[in-house]
Amino acid sequence: MAGSFFKGRFVSLFDYKTEKYIIAKNKKVGVLYRLIQLSIIGYIIGWVFVSKKGYQETDTAIQSSVITKLKGVSVTNTSESGRLVWGPEDYGEAVLFVVTNFLETPNQKLGYCAESPKVLDGHCRDDEDCEEEKMVIAGNGIKSGRCLRKDENSTGTCEIYGWCPIERKFKPRKPLLLNAENFTIYIKNFILFPKFQFSKSNVLETSDDSFLKKCRFDEQLYPYCPIFRLGDITRRAGYNFQDMATFGGSIGLLIEWDCDLDKGYSNCNPHYHFTRLDVSNNSISTGFNFRHTRYFKNAAGESYRSLFKVYGVRFNIMVHGKAGMFSIIPTAINVGSGLALMGAGAFFCDMILLYLMKKSDSYRERKFEGPK
Amino acid sequence: MAGSFFKGRFVSLFDYKTEKYIIAKNKKVGVLYRLIQLSIIGYIIGWVFVSKKGYQETDTAIQSSVITKLKGVSVTNTSESGRLVWGPEDYGEAVLFVVTNFLETPNQKLGYCAESPKVLDGHCRDDEDCEEEKMVIAGNGIKSGRCLRKDENSTGTCEIYGWCPIERKFKPRKPLLLNAENFTIYIKNFILFPKFQFSKSNVLETSDDSFLKKCRFDEQLYPYCPIFRLGDITRRAGYNFQDMATFGGSIGLLIEWDCDLDKGYSNCNPHYHFTRLDVSNNSISTGFNFRHTRYFKNAAGESYRSLFKVYGVRFNIMVHGKAGMFSIIPTAINVGSGLALMGAGAFFCDMILLYLMKKSDSYRERKFEGPK
Amino acid sequence: MAGSFFKGRFVSLFDYKTEKYIIAKNKKVGVLYRLIQLSIIGYIIGWVFVSKKGYQETDTAIQSSVITKLKGVSVTNTSESGRLVWGPEDYGEAVLFVVTNFLETPNQKLGYCAESPKVLDGHCRDDEDCEEEKMVIAGNGIKSGRCLRKDENSTGTCEIYGWCPIERKFKPRKPLLLNAENFTIYIKNFILFPKFQFSKSNVLETSDDSFLKKCRFDEQLYPYCPIFRLGDITRRAGYNFQDMATFGGSIGLLIEWDCDLDKGYSNCNPHYHFTRLDVSNNSISTGFNFRHTRYFKNAAGESYRSLFKVYGVRFNIMVHGKAGMFSIIPTAINVGSGLALMGAGAFFCDMILLYLMKKSDSYRERKFEGPK
Repeated sequence: MAGSFFKGRFVSLFDYKTEKYIIAKNKKVGVLYRLIQLSIIGYIIGWVFVSKKGYQETDTAIQSSVITKLKGVSVTNTSESGRLVWGPEDYGEAVLFVVTNFLETPNQKLGYCAESPKVLDGHCRDDEDCEEEKMVIAGNGIKSGRCLRKDENSTGTCEIYGWCPIERKFKPRKPLLLNAENFTIYIKNFILFPKFQFSKSNVLETSDDSFLKKCRFDEQLYPYCPIFRLGDITRRAGYNFQDMATFGGSIGLLIEWDCDLDKGYSNCNPHYHFTRLDVSNNSISTGFNFRHTRYFKNAAGESYRSLFKVYGVRFNIMVHGKAGMFSIIPTAINVGSGLALMGAGAFFCDMILLYLMKKSDSYRERKFEGPK
Repeated sequence: MAGSFFKGRFVSLFDYKTEKYIIAKNKKVGVLYRLIQLSIIGYIIGWVFVSKKGYQETDTAIQSSVITKLKGVSVTNTSESGRLVWGPEDYGEAVLFVVTNFLETPNQKLGYCAESPKVLDGHCRDDEDCEEEKMVIAGNGIKSGRCLRKDENSTGTCEIYGWCPIERKFKPRKPLLLNAENFTIYIKNFILFPKFQFSKSNVLETSDDSFLKKCRFDEQLYPYCPIFRLGDITRRAGYNFQDMATFGGSIGLLIEWDCDLDKGYSNCNPHYHFTRLDVSNNSISTGFNFRHTRYFKNAAGESYRSLFKVYGVRFNIMVHGKAGMFSIIPTAINVGSGLALMGAGAFFCDMILLYLMKKSDSYRERKFEGPK
Repeated sequence: MAGSFFKGRFVSLFDYKTEKYIIAKNKKVGVLYRLIQLSIIGYIIGWVFVSKKGYQETDTAIQSSVITKLKGVSVTNTSESGRLVWGPEDYGEAVLFVVTNFLETPNQKLGYCAESPKVLDGHCRDDEDCEEEKMVIAGNGIKSGRCLRKDENSTGTCEIYGWCPIERKFKPRKPLLLNAENFTIYIKNFILFPKFQFSKSNVLETSDDSFLKKCRFDEQLYPYCPIFRLGDITRRAGYNFQDMATFGGSIGLLIEWDCDLDKGYSNCNPHYHFTRLDVSNNSISTGFNFRHTRYFKNAAGESYRSLFKVYGVRFNIMVHGKAGMFSIIPTAINVGSGLALMGAGAFFCDMILLYLMKKSDSYRERKFEGPK
């Protein structure tokens, strides 16, 4: 008996069962339901799959390494410092920076001198305003306790201990560089999408070394030549290099890898975007400059230094990217949830049919079969 | 005939068909099913949509550029080096570092001298322990092959070729800085969420330059003033600046942008978090110091150098963020999968009804209609 | 009346309703449907949940801070520069770089000299080829307007204004370093997964300082010892350190944190991958070198400098990671969409049953109940 019971069960496991439907001869709701179905199918195919590539798994955690090399020499000519030559060797390889203007304060020694009158915190009327050993806020040294004045009634400036003479305040008028526009940057970018183990570089894979020595980047002609002319970079960022040169500036160089890996290796290409980063509608942060020093010792072993305030164009290289590749999971999720939404459409049409139509009562009776 | 067949098909395409239900007059399963429905609806609305904003597409691949400027001067006073002044110009613009303590080893020349007795690998009992041309592990130079001892029986140290005299071992006692607590950092952070083409900066958009020169960051009052006092940063990281100053330290300054772009531009604000990075329960990695050198030549053209071991506070600026914006795809996925789960609830209730209830047999008979 | 109407509605709200099924005694379609069900269940359990951990929410926006320290001293010996000692103190703490070879151009002064004959743009046949004040492309200075030739008929090179004498062209033959292979890097990496507020470090949490001073990283024995020998790093990247030393190179050191946070703190461990970044099938970008300068002043206050072209191994530390933790939302989405796909399977089987089977007509009649 139990045997035949289980056998029955087991056999009926393979009997196909399918929902029973009733046909509501109602064209309005029928058309509405077909419209809902069509729009869901259209959304899934058109929007999710074609436009948004919802069948793909994406990797946005791009791994990137960048090697850069700046080439070019510029000459500045000032009455104080004479003719100077600036090359990339002066700032090491961690910084992509091109000097376009500078102010040298040569032969500074540690000692006592007057704070700059431009520094508010250094103003004083008597010695009590210059509390000893206190730093001058945004100033050049430590107050010595003395107030330096021309005469008893005037406002003076505190004496400080620091590197003297202090740097002059300096508003650059015109750039001193002559040639930086023609400098070139070599940018090698190697990327990896760890999820897909896909890696590529922005440098042409060629054995022709001379090409990579002479080429200049061009989006159409040489997209895999990694050598950029500075003037072209600033022009593409929307600025004139000579205008930027006076106060310096900061240029963001964004390398974007937006890759559809289903289309293969050769369709994953870098795109370059150039933006100026230091511009805002307040002028305080426009421009780019920093200070650096060179230390010397004289024959007596005493230290002195040259302080350089250099203005110039700095390049920030940023890499971002995402890669997509077909994967069953997002496909199943998108198809599945679309189908479930069709169920919601059916529920919505049922509501209309069963409660809003003229013959709702009869539809309800037929749809819901009570116990006999 | 074929025409009317297709016409029939085509017409029936717009006949609405709806599943036939049987009413099981069973309150237990009915209540259970309503509970399941309610909890799924509650989960979707409460958790997915309200709490987790499941209707939004998110972008975590934030693009960020940071420009910093350190302002402040500190003075150190030691018996060996005298009074020295340290400013940000000494470390270039790539490093945000404030000197709080240092050890100078002046006038080093290339030559032969004894390795430090603190370096284990430099200990020797005779010349054979000092194999020529071998580097001293974690030491200061290359072994010359001679063992320098006071007398025949004592343990000595190998003679090395390197910059002599070697640096003394130095445990800093108290910080030498006087003022670094009042230094300020200007941090300009420009961000971009590429998926939504949304960009913003942490600097107040104002034409009032003087505000941005004088303001100090305050979370409540001036959240868009980008100037931070060093003492405030360390205090908010939970440490006293003076305590950190002796051995130096490393402070992580995290700028967090958690943006709900549906709420508009003005609701996307930066939040600052400060953590000390160099502290762990082993003391070896607490503190922060590095060495740098200044090279000189004497009148005869011979090189010598000053070696500085500088202790100080280094600031690591990290930017992270995510942005969310309404998108139809995640909304559809979440609603759709919630609805599908209701189907699972119905299946579960069916199982109870058809196999666990008293009148299961009669329910089964009514639910499954066999062939007549 | 209205009361009983609403009461009826309210009561019927808790009547369980369930779809009516018809049993199609068709084994073929029955087996097909069971197969579809099984494969969907297998896909959800096997692929989505077990293999891809679809029940987890993931965080790929890892936050990371890295502190490094390089230890080691190397000696170079050349006929021009004599014996020199190189340590990490020469390049600051922003760059992880080990010198393995170098070319010194000592005692450069600003002045006029001939451009290198290796620079194409510096070639000239007469003075007109050397337009005054124009930069020599990829050269060493600014043309002075004079063409320097041996005699009237030969090709000469333009005279330039720049740092003279210019650097010799130099093809390194063999590395000059003796010991850099035994240098060690200490790499402290602190990570944070912001979504889960989970943080960890790659340094053993021990109070035994001496362990962290003496240990060397070993994947099996000491995975939490953060001190790496340079020779080991290059060997694991697949290269011999001595071979890389001649032209230098760039090594990527990838710290990977792939964490299943459901398994707890101790199962979230760093993995180290080493790759050489500067190698491609074009030789132009193989190797790594950069130039830096040391400035001096003689007794008369005139500037001169030493230019160093240093070859060496640079280490790029990259951190990436992802963490996953159980979350109800992805679980619901995956289960829900899987269930919805079963509905699609039933629809597919229906189509077969109703249009492709012999007795399709009778099945259709029974499934769709027309109005009586």
